Amino acid sequence: MVRIGIVGGTGYTGVELLRLLAQHPQAELVCITSRKEEGMAVADMFPSLRGRVDLKFSAPQSASLGACDVVFFATPNGIAMEQTRALVDAGVRVIDLAADFRIRDVTVWEQWYGMKHACPDLVEEAVYGLPEVNREAIRRARLVANPGCYPTAVQLGFLPLIEAGVVDAGMLIADAKSGVSGAGRKAEVHTLFAEASDNFKAYGVAGHRHLPEIRQGLARAAGVPVGLTFVPHLTPMIRGIHATLYARLTREVDLQSLFETRYRGEPFVDVLPAGSHPETRSVRSANTCRVAVHRPQQGDVVVVLSVIDNLVKGASGQAVHNMNLMFGLPERTGLDQLPLMP
Amino acid sequence: MVRIGIVGGTGYTGVELLRLLAQHPQAELVCITSRKEEGMAVADMFPSLRGRVDLKFSAPQSASLGACDVVFFATPNGIAMEQTRALVDAGVRVIDLAADFRIRDVTVWEQWYGMKHACPDLVEEAVYGLPEVNREAIRRARLVANPGCYPTAVQLGFLPLIEAGVVDAGMLIADAKSGVSGAGRKAEVHTLFAEASDNFKAYGVAGHRHLPEIRQGLARAAGVPVGLTFVPHLTPMIRGIHATLYARLTREVDLQSLFETRYRGEPFVDVLPAGSHPETRSVRSANTCRVAVHRPQQGDVVVVLSVIDNLVKGASGQAVHNMNLMFGLPERTGLDQLPLMP
Amino acid sequence: MVRIGIVGGTGYTGVELLRLLAQHPQAELVCITSRKEEGMAVADMFPSLRGRVDLKFSAPQSASLGACDVVFFATPNGIAMEQTRALVDAGVRVIDLAADFRIRDVTVWEQWYGMKHACPDLVEEAVYGLPEVNREAIRRARLVANPGCYPTAVQLGFLPLIEAGVVDAGMLIADAKSGVSGAGRKAEVHTLFAEASDNFKAYGVAGHRHLPEIRQGLARAAGVPVGLTFVPHLTPMIRGIHATLYARLTREVDLQSLFETRYRGEPFVDVLPAGSHPETRSVRSANTCRVAVHRPQQGDVVVVLSVIDNLVKGASGQAVHNMNLMFGLPERTGLDQLPLMP
Amino acid sequence: MVRIGIVGGTGYTGVELLRLLAQHPQAELVCITSRKEEGMAVADMFPSLRGRVDLKFSAPQSASLGACDVVFFATPNGIAMEQTRALVDAGVRVIDLAADFRIRDVTVWEQWYGMKHACPDLVEEAVYGLPEVNREAIRRARLVANPGCYPTAVQLGFLPLIEAGVVDAGMLIADAKSGVSGAGRKAEVHTLFAEASDNFKAYGVAGHRHLPEIRQGLARAAGVPVGLTFVPHLTPMIRGIHATLYARLTREVDLQSLFETRYRGEPFVDVLPAGSHPETRSVRSANTCRVAVHRPQQGDVVVVLSVIDNLVKGASGQAVHNMNLMFGLPERTGLDQLPLMP
Repeated sequence: MVRIGIVGGTGYTGVELLRLLAQHPQAELVCITSRKEEGMAVADMFPSLRGRVDLKFSAPQSASLGACDVVFFATPNGIAMEQTRALVDAGVRVIDLAADFRIRDVTVWEQWYGMKHACPDLVEEAVYGLPEVNREAIRRARLVANPGCYPTAVQLGFLPLIEAGVVDAGMLIADAKSGVSGAGRKAEVHTLFAEASDNFKAYGVAGHRHLPEIRQGLARAAGVPVGLTFVPHLTPMIRGIHATLYARLTREVDLQSLFETRYRGEPFVDVLPAGSHPETRSVRSANTCRVAVHRPQQGDVVVVLSVIDNLVKGASGQAVHNMNLMFGLPERTGLDQLPLMP
Repeated sequence: MVRIGIVGGTGYTGVELLRLLAQHPQAELVCITSRKEEGMAVADMFPSLRGRVDLKFSAPQSASLGACDVVFFATPNGIAMEQTRALVDAGVRVIDLAADFRIRDVTVWEQWYGMKHACPDLVEEAVYGLPEVNREAIRRARLVANPGCYPTAVQLGFLPLIEAGVVDAGMLIADAKSGVSGAGRKAEVHTLFAEASDNFKAYGVAGHRHLPEIRQGLARAAGVPVGLTFVPHLTPMIRGIHATLYARLTREVDLQSLFETRYRGEPFVDVLPAGSHPETRSVRSANTCRVAVHRPQQGDVVVVLSVIDNLVKGASGQAVHNMNLMFGLPERTGLDQLPLMP
Repeated sequence: MVRIGIVGGTGYTGVELLRLLAQHPQAELVCITSRKEEGMAVADMFPSLRGRVDLKFSAPQSASLGACDVVFFATPNGIAMEQTRALVDAGVRVIDLAADFRIRDVTVWEQWYGMKHACPDLVEEAVYGLPEVNREAIRRARLVANPGCYPTAVQLGFLPLIEAGVVDAGMLIADAKSGVSGAGRKAEVHTLFAEASDNFKAYGVAGHRHLPEIRQGLARAAGVPVGLTFVPHLTPMIRGIHATLYARLTREVDLQSLFETRYRGEPFVDVLPAGSHPETRSVRSANTCRVAVHRPQQGDVVVVLSVIDNLVKGASGQAVHNMNLMFGLPERTGLDQLPLMP
Repeated sequence: MVRIGIVGGTGYTGVELLRLLAQHPQAELVCITSRKEEGMAVADMFPSLRGRVDLKFSAPQSASLGACDVVFFATPNGIAMEQTRALVDAGVRVIDLAADFRIRDVTVWEQWYGMKHACPDLVEEAVYGLPEVNREAIRRARLVANPGCYPTAVQLGFLPLIEAGVVDAGMLIADAKSGVSGAGRKAEVHTLFAEASDNFKAYGVAGHRHLPEIRQGLARAAGVPVGLTFVPHLTPMIRGIHATLYARLTREVDLQSLFETRYRGEPFVDVLPAGSHPETRSVRSANTCRVAVHRPQQGDVVVVLSVIDNLVKGASGQAVHNMNLMFGLPERTGLDQLPLMP
């Protein structure tokens, strides 16, 4: 059994970790912390967990964290970088679901996240937790930077094209749509039901924090910097990301075969048959990315459609996948639930 | 392993059976039939099942059904009554998710369902599959009539009061709200997204087919006929039923204790603490009924709030629960998944 | 032209007043106040008003209010009672969309609203602004207490029965469902899209502030106190209230005719044909209440279905109707827009 | 008064025409036809029109059509082309909301719409009813081809860039998202609430019928053929289109000023301030297109965001605008309603 601590369990990625880990046969939930809710039973806040999770929220600096095998940070940006050093030094492995360790260039990180990094040395050590790219490094990692939701959907869609060098990496377009849970469980006017329902809008067109993360991942695959335009949109659904990706082909290639080969054997990427249009609900509640690749009218523009559940493959499910890798468990352990449809 | 056949797998209760049974450790899916989709791979119709369900739809009169241990009918009303006799005679046990065997009075059934019953003798033998009432009979049953969705939510809410004889059974009111999946996967104008979204309405006020079913169950518990007004409403959500139940108290009683005692040990009924308001999402995707009992301003009206997922505890999950009972499996087998939240 | 001031224009009733008054041929919007948004252009906060409303938010104690013919309070409870005295003394008529002047018994008000009333003398003078009951008094009123949303839907549904004395006023049940805009434009977790969408729940079963308001109105009609159970529910839609009302008939009556006669000539109440099920969207954006009356299976329980748009007939539209009455304008002025469907 | 007939009034564009024309001060609704609903009162099908529209559906070949000043076709594709010749010859002007007369190249039309054109000669005469492009021709037209919903949003977003020649017209990308009402009021499984809610998907990536229409409009503006990739998506909202448009800048230009100048004086196009993100709800129920132009990180990709209500500016509202032009009425007549928010 893997002894597990969760820091910051009152947000959506936290409660999703609880849902997944409470059903994980090798997971032992040891403690979960929350500054504001110390002493409250987790199942009082989230009745969906009644009878299944008996923990109470404990204080943030709970001593129990040091006794865990692994600690997940399901916190706002800037928390994990304060606490990770002590945990790692105590032999606890860390998976950060926030952005603190995702960007290797600390200057870039500080610019996009508007704060001083508290722990730049660990940035270098941290492994970017996209198993489809870094599987072996993740197995050995002490510290995993779990990818963002948009970056997961966008990278998995673009990678086969970039790695094969068949598109113009200088003009990539990622038009991405996210369900409202991606904005978190914070009380804000713009994500109220009466504001976000029956409505659709883009946001962050001038620059979204996931842009440098995606750019870094694609550049690593390309071997050169990439030109990427990334436009996220808020969609009136709870869960799900749909990334629609555009690139210009630079040479002939069998696109379907390229994608199928790249993801053969990957337990959590499903390449759909040619001509498919993946729906976000086809992965709702599951740790799966489904992708389809199109070449409309046999022109030179390739269109990739990539869907994930932002809270699972885009956050907590991928974190559990990383944990499985780190502790030598079969990759699918605890992640085998079927999508909820309808 | 229990060898399983499903008749009519293209509707919501059918695909929900597939989701649950594909994850059930003792279930072996042998065949699934569909008149219209013969030969099509199930996962082509429902991509959420890709990689997990390999079956193709076979013709309705598939010989394989006779080789099953149990056959589920996830069909429109009037189909199971035509085919059950032959299956039962061949030693196959049957669970009907439609209404063919729910009403013991065949005359009443024919009046509400508008057709001649094809198999009245089996009506008498059929066991009404509400485990919280008929557990032992279900274990031995050859034929189980799986309850309707509204009847499950309403009966579980009223039963403790009726059985204890603490309310006026002559004036019971059940105001019930259902998600749109309750209307099935038929193409109809009134359940289109653009019609049912951002909208709320009652329907069937003059008389809904679930009325006689609820009345029968409550009358059995009361020992006398009951007076019931039942008003269903269509709610803009996919899954979930919320029943708000009203009755007049006829004597003093500790309501909270009454409910907790009645459902102590029941694996799939959760009595919430006094003062609670259960949400439908707290049971989304799970085979759980959560109930709360109120007595506003200490008056003589008792209000019960009862929520289920109409496709799980209100249909396919309860059917699997019945199967577990019929085959001597632990009741929770394959039904332990946590609700999806948010 | 009626010169108009609005206090507190950043909530949903405020912006709805702006929508209606900007299209009202006799309305001149003079000023709108907001403590937090002073100086901001109204259309910057609400782009739907671009090019149509040129006002900026001014400070709460704006001198311009005193120069208005009428001031609407679209504020939280407890604000209007502080400012109304001065306005009324200055000859400005006041319509309060909050609850400050709705309950005639100040002790009851203070108990339910948890504060000391600042202006009890004006409570006595205030006219309850339900035109279908108080039309003549409203015409002469200096101060109108605009009814709550639930109270409007529930009273209009029960009044014909109560006034005619054909039901047992001792056991009335109002099961009401509201869209999420009824909770206002405050940032709160429970009304976030990811919490309120695809979900349904009751709330305030122990006691909701609209209960004494409804009880007061029904008691006035009955001539005696009434026994009322009121259960509100939160529904995943933006606008709309659906009240499902239950009462026991005490004598034979032609229900359809009773309702049609009661509301004949009322510009904003539409009695549907027998057997109808009004939908909330049939009144979306319109100042209309549609009602239907049923007697299921010819039993002794009468069921009334009553729908309104909570922001129009349940708030700002009714306030404009009251203004029309107060200033001698035709009642439909500015309120003739057709419902938005779909 | 303009005497008006509507052919095919049971779909969403038909009922939206009724909503708009019933409030239009110069419109006299003379007849509305429906093959299936002959004899039924329009307000029985659409209760939102009760008390405001007294018409009954009449037979399709109603003689009254010939007595109208203008006939709107709110029919499936292929109907208007059968009936228009006779009407035009009788001196009746025609506005077709379907696609029969939108594509000037009949061969292209026949290929995309899969039928033989019944009336190719009138295609040449027909004026494409985008007032921002063809205002003067529309005034004189006997036959107006009302634009499609996607084509309206996409063309209005691209036109300033194309007309000014500041982008590479060889690689334009239009990523468009539509509410479900865009699929019409036909009973189909994929647009059921339980299928389309809480879900997002692309469709028609291989080729959508609006592609040649958009291409034709942009090519006319560019003076040369354009390279366009168009990907439509189904969004869980009732109304609204959001087009996110991408193009590569070929020379420096003040984008904000370019858009403001292009649309100065246009009554129904609103250029938002720099940095804005228009929301679809900001135009809900209104005949307005709001656009914003961005240049992320000052790179060479320009991003245009364009929103309309698909049933108003994308269909029936634009048709009424065209009628106003054809009959010499002020352009805003009957189209001045404010968007519904929230």
